Amino acid sequence: MSASIAPLRDFVRDITALFDRGLNPPAVQLEGVNLLRRLVSRDDWLPDAFARPDPQRYSQYLLHCDPAERFSVVSFVWGPGQSTPLHDHRIWGLIGMLRGREVETQFVRDAQGRFHEAESSELHPGEVTILEPDLNDYHRVANASADTTAISIHVYGGNIGGVLRATYDPASGARKAFISGYSNDTVPNLWDRSRQTEPA
Amino acid sequence: MSASIAPLRDFVRDITALFDRGLNPPAVQLEGVNLLRRLVSRDDWLPDAFARPDPQRYSQYLLHCDPAERFSVVSFVWGPGQSTPLHDHRIWGLIGMLRGREVETQFVRDAQGRFHEAESSELHPGEVTILEPDLNDYHRVANASADTTAISIHVYGGNIGGVLRATYDPASGARKAFISGYSNDTVPNLWDRSRQTEPA
Ligand SMILES: [Fe+3]
Ligand SMILES: [Fe+3]
Ligand SMILES: [Mg+2]
Repeated sequence: MSASIAPLRDFVRDITALFDRGLNPPAVQLEGVNLLRRLVSRDDWLPDAFARPDPQRYSQYLLHCDPAERFSVVSFVWGPGQSTPLHDHRIWGLIGMLRGREVETQFVRDAQGRFHEAESSELHPGEVTILEPDLNDYHRVANASADTTAISIHVYGGNIGGVLRATYDPASGARKAFISGYSNDTVPNLWDRSRQTEPA
Repeated sequence: MSASIAPLRDFVRDITALFDRGLNPPAVQLEGVNLLRRLVSRDDWLPDAFARPDPQRYSQYLLHCDPAERFSVVSFVWGPGQSTPLHDHRIWGLIGMLRGREVETQFVRDAQGRFHEAESSELHPGEVTILEPDLNDYHRVANASADTTAISIHVYGGNIGGVLRATYDPASGARKAFISGYSNDTVPNLWDRSRQTEPA
């Protein structure tokens, strides 16, 4: 179990407040980088239930979704050697590395619709990167390690689990639609400041 | 498992929107009565994990808390014969009966600080009542049945699990401070519109 869920509670409250202040999405994203950097600067708050690798495939645990679906926060957990296919997002995103290492490979699409590897970079704990639909929406992500778990915290400009998106075959450009959903039926209770149970 | 969490998702979205429209608390409460009545007009959406009685004492499962803590939604589950002590709330509330029957006994406090039973009423599925701090903040609630579970859905004008409140001994008026917290470490994932898991 985590020491305290407070860092995640504060993060959710602060991102919500950015939207409630009327900031536009690029401004939220910019401020969000700073808030996410602070969130992943420590690794003592993610409850075990949302940090657990699945031997079959990587997991995507929803940690919070804004009720107006303006943003979502997701914990990605990669078992040793696990990776995604090449895919897109369609909405902005932030990736903050919490534990272990992951390799992100970006792709560009040519006029024939085929994909070519562009940049590849390894993320280490505490680092934050950006996904921008108009700029770099195509990537493949993998655990950089063959023997340890990797966990990154993602923030998206919408309810990512409900977005109609696509995976691609890099060579042919062939596309397959998908809606990811989430790996979990319950999300963390961020709001219990007491463990004592009494009348209400 | 419930048929679909959608009624609860819609409820949370709609109450949030009332606040975001800038309505004042009494207006939110008034509109909230209608929304809560709709929510408890059907009993097919509450996941089993949040409908489970505890043989030791009644449970209070957080279903949703607004990130700005403007409101919370809680499932109260009463095993056969379970009841609360006399207590207060300090913030406005709505109670919607979902399953079984509960008896609410209201109290008035005299000049000496002692309590006297006022109204007592039995709530049936689909019915909604109001808690108003300035009007009727003192009550005791009990499962009306000695052999079935009772479940009511409560909405409060704040994060009820974190409010410093009190229980009272009716005869002497003696008061004991408490913060209720919640019975659960995780709340329902309202935002998964798919059960398929894929890249994100
Ligand atoms: Fe009460
Ligand atoms: Fe991705
Ligand atoms: Mg009442």
